[in-house]
This record gives sequence, C-alpha cells and structure tokens, in this order.
Amino acid sequence: MTDLLDPQYAQALDAQDPLAHFRQEFVVDDPALIYLDGNSLGRLPVRTRGILQDYVDQQWGQRLIRGWNEGWLDLTQRIGDKIAPLVGARTGEVVVAESTSTNLFKLAAAALKARPGRRKIVTDDLNFPSDLYILQGIAGLLDAGHHIQIVPSPDGVHGPMDALASAIDADTALVSLSHTVFKSAYTYDMAAITGQAHAAGALALWDLSHSAGAVLVDLHGAGADLAVGCTYKYLNGGPGAPAFLYVRRDLQESLSNPISGWFSQAAPFDFGLEHEPAAGLRRMLTGTPPVLSLAAVEPGIDLLLAAGMERLRAKSVQQGEYLMALVDAVLQPLGFRINSPRNSARRGSHISIGHPEGWRINRALIEQMQVLPDFRAPDNIRLGITPLYTTFDDIRQAVQRLRAVVETRLFEQYPAERPAVT
Amino acid sequence: MTDLLDPQYAQALDAQDPLAHFRQEFVVDDPALIYLDGNSLGRLPVRTRGILQDYVDQQWGQRLIRGWNEGWLDLTQRIGDKIAPLVGARTGEVVVAESTSTNLFKLAAAALKARPGRRKIVTDDLNFPSDLYILQGIAGLLDAGHHIQIVPSPDGVHGPMDALASAIDADTALVSLSHTVFKSAYTYDMAAITGQAHAAGALALWDLSHSAGAVLVDLHGAGADLAVGCTYKYLNGGPGAPAFLYVRRDLQESLSNPISGWFSQAAPFDFGLEHEPAAGLRRMLTGTPPVLSLAAVEPGIDLLLAAGMERLRAKSVQQGEYLMALVDAVLQPLGFRINSPRNSARRGSHISIGHPEGWRINRALIEQMQVLPDFRAPDNIRLGITPLYTTFDDIRQAVQRLRAVVETRLFEQYPAERPAVT
Repeated sequence: MTDLLDPQYAQALDAQDPLAHFRQEFVVDDPALIYLDGNSLGRLPVRTRGILQDYVDQQWGQRLIRGWNEGWLDLTQRIGDKIAPLVGARTGEVVVAESTSTNLFKLAAAALKARPGRRKIVTDDLNFPSDLYILQGIAGLLDAGHHIQIVPSPDGVHGPMDALASAIDADTALVSLSHTVFKSAYTYDMAAITGQAHAAGALALWDLSHSAGAVLVDLHGAGADLAVGCTYKYLNGGPGAPAFLYVRRDLQESLSNPISGWFSQAAPFDFGLEHEPAAGLRRMLTGTPPVLSLAAVEPGIDLLLAAGMERLRAKSVQQGEYLMALVDAVLQPLGFRINSPRNSARRGSHISIGHPEGWRINRALIEQMQVLPDFRAPDNIRLGITPLYTTFDDIRQAVQRLRAVVETRLFEQYPAERPAVT
Repeated sequence: MTDLLDPQYAQALDAQDPLAHFRQEFVVDDPALIYLDGNSLGRLPVRTRGILQDYVDQQWGQRLIRGWNEGWLDLTQRIGDKIAPLVGARTGEVVVAESTSTNLFKLAAAALKARPGRRKIVTDDLNFPSDLYILQGIAGLLDAGHHIQIVPSPDGVHGPMDALASAIDADTALVSLSHTVFKSAYTYDMAAITGQAHAAGALALWDLSHSAGAVLVDLHGAGADLAVGCTYKYLNGGPGAPAFLYVRRDLQESLSNPISGWFSQAAPFDFGLEHEPAAGLRRMLTGTPPVLSLAAVEPGIDLLLAAGMERLRAKSVQQGEYLMALVDAVLQPLGFRINSPRNSARRGSHISIGHPEGWRINRALIEQMQVLPDFRAPDNIRLGITPLYTTFDDIRQAVQRLRAVVETRLFEQYPAERPAVT
C-alpha cells in the first residue's frame, strides 16, 4: 500500500504537475510557511508589485487627473471582460466594482423589482451569512412583504436539493445561493437550480466567491441570470479587492440599478440632472472605483487565464482527493471527520475537516506550526487548495503537522473559548 | 499700483507662506507642470509610496490572511477617526468605506425610513448630478411616492437660500445638498440650512466632497445629521479612494443600514443567519473594504492634520483672492468672467472662470501649455487651489498662460464641439 505521507510520493506528484511552475509567479518569501487559506486571501502575484508601482508612481504621481482618460475609466469593464471567460460569461457581461455585498444588493433589489407581485426569496443556510444579511436588508428597505425562506441543509454539508425544489414556487421572485458554499465547499448544480427557478418564473442569482478560479463555472451553459463574486480569494486580487457582477446580456436593459451613481449614467460628462441609464452593463455601475485596488486585480486573473481553468480544476480535484485520502488514513483516527462532499463534482477547492478541538488545533497550527488554514464555527478547519501555488508536498506536510498538534496535545496550551468578537 | 503678474510679487508671497514646505511632501516630478486640479484628484504624497509598498510586500505578501487581525479590520474606523477633526466631527462618527455614491445611498435611504410619511426630498440644481441620480434611484426603488424637489439657483453660482427655505416644509423628510458645490464652489451656510431642516422636522445630509480639506467644516457646530464625502480630492487619497460617511453620535442607533453586509454585523465571526446591527457607526459599513486603496488614504490626511485646517483655509482664501484679482485685471478684458462667489466666506477652494471658448481654451492649456485645470459644461474652467502644494507663482503663471492661449488664438486649433461621451 502506498505510504501517502512519504515525502517522495508527494514530491513525485509535484514533479509531474504541469502547473507547478506557476508557483514562481507568486511571492513566496517564507518556504517553511504552508499557506492553505488562498480561499480567503490569494497570495500576491509577483507582477502585481510592479503594476501597482506603475499606477502609483507613473499614473497617479505624474499623469495625475489625465489618468482617467488614459485607462482608469475603462478598468471596470476591461477587467470584467477578462473575468468573463473564467466563469462562462461573454464580453460585456461582467464588470468589476464595489464590494460583493453591494453588488449583491444591486442585483437582488433589481431582480425583486423585475418580478413585481412575487414576494418570496429562496436561499439556504449554507449561504454566506453576509448574503443573507443583504437580502434581509433589502426586504426591510422595500417593506413590500418580501420574505426570505432559508432552506436548511440536511447535514450542514450538502445543499438541500429536494427542499429547494419544493420551496421555489409561483410566489418566488428570486433564488439566491452561493454556488460553492463557504463552509463545506459543496458546489451546486447551477443548471438544475436555475432551471427550477426559470420554470417557476423566478430569477437566479449566484454568488461565485468560492467558485471563480476554483471550479468550472458555466454561467451561460446554466442559463444563469445574475451573479456576483469576489476577486480576493482564488483570483488573487489583494485584500478587499473590488468584486465583480454578471448580468446576462439579454437581461441588462430590463433591470434598474438601485444605486445609480454617475458611473451608470449614459453621458456622465453632460452633467444632466436626470438619471438616464447607460446602455449595457455600465448601467449597473455606481461611483468612482478604487483604482489602485482595482488595478491589483488584473495580474492574478492573467495567471488563471494562462494556466487555464480546465487544468487548474483537474489539479484541484487531484489535490483534494490526495488530501482526503490523507485525512482518512492519518487524521480520522485522531477524531477528525471530513465535512466536505466526497464527490468532487459537487465540491469546490477546499476541504473542511471537523474536530471537537478544531478552534484550538487551528490556533496551534497558525502560531506554532507554520500552517495557515482558517477556522469556521463551530468546529471546521478549512484547508484551502489553490492549484496555482499549492503543492502536493504542502498538503502532505500540513497533515503531518496537524497530526503532530493532536498527538502532542500542543493545542491544550490555548483556551477553549473563542473570543466573542472578531 | 502692484503688478500682479510680476514674478517677484508672487514669489515674495510664496517666500512668506508658512505652509510652503508642505509642497515637498508631494511628488512633483515635473516642475513646469502647473496642476490646478487637486479638487478632482489630489497629488501623490511622497509617503504614500512607501506605505503602499509596505501594505503590498510585507502585509499582503508575507502576513497574508493574518493582515486582517493585524490592522486591516480596523482601517475603516481608524482612518475615519482621523478625518473627523477635519470636518468638525468626533471620534466614532466617521468611517471610510465604499464610494461616495454608495454612502449617499445608505444614508439617504436610512433617513427616508426614519421619517415615515414624509415624501419630499429637497435639493438644488448646483448639487452633483451624481447625487441627484442616487436620490432618484432611491425614490424609484422605494416606490413610496417620494418626490425630489430640485430648487434652482438664481444665477447658476449662488445657492438658492430663500427658495430652499420655502421648499423645506412639513412633508420634507430629507434635505440633501453639496456643502460646497462642484461647479461654482459656492459654500452653503450649513448651520442655517440644517436649522431650517430641523425646524421642519427633516434631516440634513451634506456632501462634503468639495469641502473636506478645503474649507472649515463644523458638522457638530452646525448640528448636522448626516454627511458623506470623497477622499481623492483635497484629502489626496488617490484615484477613486474610498469615501467617508458621518452620522451624528445620537442618531447612529436609530438608523437602519439598507446595505447591511457582514462588516455591519454585531458579531460577524459568529456566522449567525440573522442580521444584528453592530453598535455605533460600524452598523453603517457593508462589505470588505479595498485595503490597498484604503491604506493610501491615510498619508494625505496626516498632512492636512499637520498643516492645520485654519492655516490651510487662510492660505486658500488668500490664493483665491490673488487669483480673482488676476482674472479681473488680466483675463476679464479677454472675455472671461468669474463664475464663483466673490465672498470668500461662501466660496470653497476653486475658482470657476467662464468663457464662450472655455472648452477649447481648456484643451489648449492642457495639451500645449502645461497647465492642468478641468472643464465643466457649459463653459467653466475650474482652477483648483490646493494650499498644501499650490504656489502663488503657480497661480500667476497659470493666468499668464491663459492669457497667451487667448491672445495667440491657440485654442482655435481645436474643434469647438465637445465629444459626446466622456
């Protein structure tokens, strides 16, 4: 039987990896650190440093206000068009601006207005709580009797497919789900749910934050109406980088942007006093975008395009299978269980493992073992695989160090109580 | 009689300027360029370069996800607290996040909900068109019979004080104005208008984009309820830098944030499914802020704090008077007129000058004369004074070059028609 923990085994997998050279495109100053949180914040691409320096020193510093006419005004659309092929969208269907939450607000509110008389929003309890808060905020603001049905997952891991099918009905205006959910990494069948929404006359809005750059997303193939997603996870855009939004081409002219600032105006430099929505997706923009954070988004996307999503996904699946095999063989006897789907077709690019002492184990990993995963209540340690730079040997060593933390009871140095805030 | 165009006269004023040394704190690579558009995009502070490099290389590159617990989570509040003294607010009353338009949306929508039954929003035709678009978007979204009364200025320069007083009535929920208006630089008496709003039972919301860092703003002294403002003009935060919002302390708990993402949640890392607003102003935040653009905001604010708003304002007024005297003496005979208030107590930090050939003159200035003002339809050239780095000699030379463009008919090289878009 293969010794999965044998360094030579992992290193042989790395040697065969056709994407291995992409790791050199990222800043990896500390080779001892095993970074398994690219699903929360992607690493810094080497090229981003120089690009930001150019935006700061040359563009802002020297070109000053002229920068707007020399590229900044088009950034939201130009970078959006680069994201489009990563998620199965077309040119003119994706723009980058604002936060994921603000984009979700805009698209969800527009969707509710486009389905007058319908009062139900369907979602699930695996969705980002933040997305639920946004939907709750919209319902409170509109005060038009909308209610949000939060369909519970049967096991906290898998999406409630049957219960969702029952919940989506003739009163449903909007189905809003995370395509890949943040805790278990369960990935929905986008085409199936979208089809159910359409059959009921509802619109479907997908949060792609844990899918873009991680799994194969085919918005067009699935007939998806609307989507949002973040750029600082698998897209490596930097902390809090602006988010993207997608509206299918044939829907764009029928939706009203509720936050209609000057970037959404047909002729903004005419300074007319009445809002006239721009043609196409520009109508869904709002205010002046944060140029420096926006510029930093591009190099990470270029790397994903160069590697190709098919190859990245294949590596992610292979690494996920390797990690799960290690968990089963090495960590399961120590009290860990896998809280992610076994079926890779229904799984994103991270593996959640649960342990009653998860909080303390995670702290020990970070503070003493040079492993950076993250923790999600109540007991999940999320191990993020980012195939652009995660190595098979990273995975092997992370499991080895996890084993050491539990076997040596290192985690007992830490208080069991999580701090109340942040 | 003093020869205002005498270089020695201007240079003597610069020699006496107690703030002159602050110019060295900014990147000024091209001393021939006269930059008079700091009211659209402030110059790059020298320190910003190093700070951004630290955020990119050390914080993102090396600390990775740990950056959130090592300072990023508090940035919105920490930088907001630095802006507070610049606008007469207190600690805990200002946060930095999202765009000015999104912030205006949040506060205006919250204000309308806080005044149920009232259906009028009062504004003027000197306001940013973008602000009007946002208000129109809210009215359309709520679909509750709100109407927006756009009170016209009597002359396109001064605020319609009497007509506003008549417009603000018992049906008014919100008065929303630019404190300093973008075209003429007219500055409202914030206390007077706010008092009228309060007497009628309405809330007052001020856009400080052309006031913050430019004039003395005393939100508390004026009893102001709500404010928004941008950080990329006189605050020198960089292109599209995140905006700020202000809510008076005693109002904070009574307002509902309509875009209630996870940054507004009381305990975001508990991942509860119901939104529970955070205490204090954090409840008005939304999503993850763009850290790089946010970090770039701080050095410019530090420079304003070091110079002191009283001294900056005194210099701005002195430079404005000098510029208007030059326009009267040198440019008025060439067909220019001053489209800004003569009274410095009612004027911000730029001077608008009108000319029938304003569009073409502005293009000639930019493309052939190394002067960068900006143009606002129909015929205004805006000459922005940013006392942290504008010199008296800049002003003198700008007027000299303006005269040359008209006297030599240089502007006739350019087409009279403005391009239709951007």
